[in-house]
Amino acid sequence: MPGNSFGNLFRITTWGESHGLALGVIIDGCPSGIDISEDDIQHELDRRRPGQSKITTQRKEPDRIEILSGIFDGKTLGTPISLMIKNADVISKSYEDIKDTYRPGHADYTYEKKYGIRDYRGGGRSSARETVGRVAAASIAKKILSFDGIKTTGYVKQVGDIVADNIDLDQIEKNLVRCPDSKKAEEMIEQIEKVRREGDSIGGIVEVVSRGVPPGLGSPVFNKIEADLAGALMSIGGIRGFEVGMGFETARRMGSEVNDMMYKDDSGNLRFRTNNAGGLQGGITNGEDLLVRIAIKPTSSIPKIQKTVDKHGKQKDLVVKGRHDPCLCPRAVPIAEAMVNLVLVDHLLMSKVSRI
Amino acid sequence: MPGNSFGNLFRITTWGESHGLALGVIIDGCPSGIDISEDDIQHELDRRRPGQSKITTQRKEPDRIEILSGIFDGKTLGTPISLMIKNADVISKSYEDIKDTYRPGHADYTYEKKYGIRDYRGGGRSSARETVGRVAAASIAKKILSFDGIKTTGYVKQVGDIVADNIDLDQIEKNLVRCPDSKKAEEMIEQIEKVRREGDSIGGIVEVVSRGVPPGLGSPVFNKIEADLAGALMSIGGIRGFEVGMGFETARRMGSEVNDMMYKDDSGNLRFRTNNAGGLQGGITNGEDLLVRIAIKPTSSIPKIQKTVDKHGKQKDLVVKGRHDPCLCPRAVPIAEAMVNLVLVDHLLMSKVSRI
Amino acid sequence: MPGNSFGNLFRITTWGESHGLALGVIIDGCPSGIDISEDDIQHELDRRRPGQSKITTQRKEPDRIEILSGIFDGKTLGTPISLMIKNADVISKSYEDIKDTYRPGHADYTYEKKYGIRDYRGGGRSSARETVGRVAAASIAKKILSFDGIKTTGYVKQVGDIVADNIDLDQIEKNLVRCPDSKKAEEMIEQIEKVRREGDSIGGIVEVVSRGVPPGLGSPVFNKIEADLAGALMSIGGIRGFEVGMGFETARRMGSEVNDMMYKDDSGNLRFRTNNAGGLQGGITNGEDLLVRIAIKPTSSIPKIQKTVDKHGKQKDLVVKGRHDPCLCPRAVPIAEAMVNLVLVDHLLMSKVSRI
Amino acid sequence: MPGNSFGNLFRITTWGESHGLALGVIIDGCPSGIDISEDDIQHELDRRRPGQSKITTQRKEPDRIEILSGIFDGKTLGTPISLMIKNADVISKSYEDIKDTYRPGHADYTYEKKYGIRDYRGGGRSSARETVGRVAAASIAKKILSFDGIKTTGYVKQVGDIVADNIDLDQIEKNLVRCPDSKKAEEMIEQIEKVRREGDSIGGIVEVVSRGVPPGLGSPVFNKIEADLAGALMSIGGIRGFEVGMGFETARRMGSEVNDMMYKDDSGNLRFRTNNAGGLQGGITNGEDLLVRIAIKPTSSIPKIQKTVDKHGKQKDLVVKGRHDPCLCPRAVPIAEAMVNLVLVDHLLMSKVSRI
Repeated sequence: MPGNSFGNLFRITTWGESHGLALGVIIDGCPSGIDISEDDIQHELDRRRPGQSKITTQRKEPDRIEILSGIFDGKTLGTPISLMIKNADVISKSYEDIKDTYRPGHADYTYEKKYGIRDYRGGGRSSARETVGRVAAASIAKKILSFDGIKTTGYVKQVGDIVADNIDLDQIEKNLVRCPDSKKAEEMIEQIEKVRREGDSIGGIVEVVSRGVPPGLGSPVFNKIEADLAGALMSIGGIRGFEVGMGFETARRMGSEVNDMMYKDDSGNLRFRTNNAGGLQGGITNGEDLLVRIAIKPTSSIPKIQKTVDKHGKQKDLVVKGRHDPCLCPRAVPIAEAMVNLVLVDHLLMSKVSRI
Repeated sequence: MPGNSFGNLFRITTWGESHGLALGVIIDGCPSGIDISEDDIQHELDRRRPGQSKITTQRKEPDRIEILSGIFDGKTLGTPISLMIKNADVISKSYEDIKDTYRPGHADYTYEKKYGIRDYRGGGRSSARETVGRVAAASIAKKILSFDGIKTTGYVKQVGDIVADNIDLDQIEKNLVRCPDSKKAEEMIEQIEKVRREGDSIGGIVEVVSRGVPPGLGSPVFNKIEADLAGALMSIGGIRGFEVGMGFETARRMGSEVNDMMYKDDSGNLRFRTNNAGGLQGGITNGEDLLVRIAIKPTSSIPKIQKTVDKHGKQKDLVVKGRHDPCLCPRAVPIAEAMVNLVLVDHLLMSKVSRI
Repeated sequence: MPGNSFGNLFRITTWGESHGLALGVIIDGCPSGIDISEDDIQHELDRRRPGQSKITTQRKEPDRIEILSGIFDGKTLGTPISLMIKNADVISKSYEDIKDTYRPGHADYTYEKKYGIRDYRGGGRSSARETVGRVAAASIAKKILSFDGIKTTGYVKQVGDIVADNIDLDQIEKNLVRCPDSKKAEEMIEQIEKVRREGDSIGGIVEVVSRGVPPGLGSPVFNKIEADLAGALMSIGGIRGFEVGMGFETARRMGSEVNDMMYKDDSGNLRFRTNNAGGLQGGITNGEDLLVRIAIKPTSSIPKIQKTVDKHGKQKDLVVKGRHDPCLCPRAVPIAEAMVNLVLVDHLLMSKVSRI
Repeated sequence: MPGNSFGNLFRITTWGESHGLALGVIIDGCPSGIDISEDDIQHELDRRRPGQSKITTQRKEPDRIEILSGIFDGKTLGTPISLMIKNADVISKSYEDIKDTYRPGHADYTYEKKYGIRDYRGGGRSSARETVGRVAAASIAKKILSFDGIKTTGYVKQVGDIVADNIDLDQIEKNLVRCPDSKKAEEMIEQIEKVRREGDSIGGIVEVVSRGVPPGLGSPVFNKIEADLAGALMSIGGIRGFEVGMGFETARRMGSEVNDMMYKDDSGNLRFRTNNAGGLQGGITNGEDLLVRIAIKPTSSIPKIQKTVDKHGKQKDLVVKGRHDPCLCPRAVPIAEAMVNLVLVDHLLMSKVSRI
């Protein structure tokens, strides 16, 4: 409950501040006997790494994973897996002038009210760098899920007013913005560069689909799969909304339009003709694709002059320095996938004890 | 972790099936010394009770609360508070014919896949009746929050395409649909009656605002206040989306439009000129109104003929009998308030141990 | 964490005060599909029931179990099982005169210091009646364990200075004191009657053995099986010590005397020649009998005049009225078994997710 | 629940294998604003460090603490505190020959049964080296407790048949065996050297006293303070028994001998004339010294030839190499203190939310 752990049976605890010596994660509850190499983990870290392209922050972090425990001779031991990523490109100096000033859109003021103290360098614990541990841990979850044929894929669905129509998962990693619609990807990149030139930032939507999820994962009351997914995804910084399946659109519709009808397919499986529910009913998966979306606000750190106050309430004109993504969406993709995988692996393990 | 408990320091566990003998809740962690009467609890139960009006289900449940433990001489003891509500108007017979048939939009199939068994009468544990325990427990949370001046109010913001504009909290309980805009309330009621006549149902949006929340409540990583609220609200049956503050609209905006600017007000307090963030930054409250919204799907149970299958995969035309709300929104209001209050009370208690 | 729940995957939450309307328990996490009848549960309750014999309290409580949820058509649903036992023979009057006086050996003073309020009738929540919920819940754990061939048996090993030598499990339920040595049982009963006549009470030791426990149950660090057993058994009121296997005797011994040597038996199984470790190594079971003991203090409530103070610190001579067991051991047997079974069922379920 | 975390509000998670790269701990829930230096932590680590004297293992580990997160400008931030201790003197070679052989008294066989894999070097996760993280974390708990005037002191009460009589806490750190009775300390050291020369090891008892504990800490049912202490202390490797206050001796006594009588002292405080209960009633502290004892088995690793089997069941004569303490007691003292402090800090924080 202190707030830095996630999951129950596959339980992770992240630690680290943006400009401290290192960040990391402990995974407790990973089953023994799984083949894991540093490469498996590094691959996912590289996807969320800063400095990947012209549309992301220029902070250069190699984000090299170090496995400190829990893996022996290439296999998980069943004991806690400790993963660490050292910080390299730390320029704390650029944060000295905001030591006593609250950046708009940031957690500076709220940390101060909660803790009475904060590590102001790069946002400290509130930095998106915290997610490096989540992604590292989830790379192992991803492997476990793959044994059951479950595969989660995220992509940028929307940037500003530009919405992807043509969903081709093969296109995602072929463009800088991780959009499955190659034509819209170009527009999105153009739009992101435009707002960056203007000293501004822009929001967007990331969609995540999990395929191969068997029916029967989840829990009917407080840990409905959609509740756990919502909590998981809303715990990423800068997320302002979550929806599953038809989402907010259902508010405008009638039951006869929204209910998904069942049928028996040619292989004799029970299926649904539509997937308005996004792959679940009553908190439990139904065998269709699990489909969720999150609304991501525009990056708070913008070079434009903004009006704010310092800790004494003195009015200030602030220009936020440091190196920031003009649009959080592309790098949010692997983080969102990570959170979905962490939820799924927990429910997958839990499903092994739900029946006698 | 088995899924029927919520909260950490103020922890509730609900139990009961729709057509069983009773439903109830245990509250563990309620501080001692709080004056609680049955009336305090009954008042909230009456707000979520079925059979309140022409636009809600006609199931007549008195929903009388019984306090079985934890309260002595009108005060909380600090020991578990056990609350029970007996079922009265149970017509199990109407469910016999769906014993082996999966109702569209319901959890019948998914329960079967998870547990291999289900109580088919009224949906069993998946029924909205489960929330009676949540509301009962939250009535005590509400009282604790009131000592700190925190007050949570929910209302119907939207039904189908009808959106409330004029938010006047005093209007909410004056109309059947719990809409703060009295003019729109009439339109909403009309719309609900129309879909009912058509044998259909309709979705909507409920908005919840918490006033008087001090800055500094929440937690910066996995238990961000918006993450806990999302998990809490998405755990109510039939919710398809969650947003905070400007929500999904932020996806379309630029940082300079979304960031809330700080200033010192006349009383010397630090405040925000806008509240696009919905009362929080980095997972922690900022002293502004906490503002969240949920998208509620149209009721799954509709009298219209729907195509489905039975457990053997045989195609069936189904007419769902039983008594159902054509729009879940009005009765979702006290349930949504309850979940918000349960999250807030937990973080309020937690805030007492976050600093030395 | 608020303290009234036990277990993780098979999680129970007990509620109720000694002289309230009822007591009960919720079991969350019980797998679905298990045949359970009221008789299964009642049988265990009858074993811990007060008023069984001349050497136990004369309070007459039928302790009739009521199943309120979670079981349908005789099978567990996978949803929370709510069990309730109504209080019948409640004589609150006998407690009026100790409303403001602290009984020696009781929790009256400590509750007052913790909560500032207490239900003084029969000790309220601190009464041994609280364990009725534990025993009810554990009767289901016992059934689950039986499917894996695990059977837990408790007995009175010692009363005062009288120690059972001849351990014959078949004798246990044949004498009032639940001693496996029929000769020593008589001596124990005589001793208990003697102290009762003197207005006093006496302590003892209960031993619990679990047979058929497979190797590999447990967890190597904080949830070592002996740690969980110790926590479980020490959570029963009036327990002053816990030991496993050779226990405190190991303090006097050398490694060459204590280490259990392994061999391969005729069936090809790896076994241990001795069982000084009590069935475990490094927190994990080794396939030998799991063997633990608890030291039970003499009942605090004795009719003898004792010196104490009231809440104002005024010196008082107190004669504790009410009806009490002169020796807690016989009725502690089913409670100790219950706690052992609750620990084992949790680790048994957990073992299903510890390997890929 | 996966087993490597301890505590609720002040929650630690340890990680690391004996012969891996490093070991460590995350503390989640440490309040912000506490002054902590590396020296505070190092001081406690030095007390449990191997290679301290002729009666402990000769493995030389500097056990230098590294603070990786959660502390900024010498103060706790309220965010997770990550502490790491690198392994230095790792001689894995000496373990190669026991790769497939089960050492008597060790967890080799049980790990194999649970996980199907183990890090056989130095016992891997089952090594006492795991406790380095507990001691590091508890040094911060100790500081928090000191603000409330709570001080915990452990010492060796018994080695073999030699029992300390004369308890003088000032003597503890003045002798190699950490015995508060300087005369008995000499006998104990002699005894330990004797068994070492014989290629054997010896058991003992460690006693821990906490002074200044206010009345009202604890919880009445499953998290009784004695239950949490028992679970905490029994989670240290090689512990075979736990008792509080008069402990197992109460089994032989009558209620009139065991009940502690209350009185009002000269300062007007309610006190107890004796402390047979060891500082608690009904799971809650009563203001007297909290007094517990643990029975520690003789070290399993002894140079004497022992009979065992390998993983194929083949009989083997084994001489355990490696460097081991002939008596675990002296180095168990800081570990036992650590576990007691971890329990106390959790209940101290919890006490801040138990009343309105």
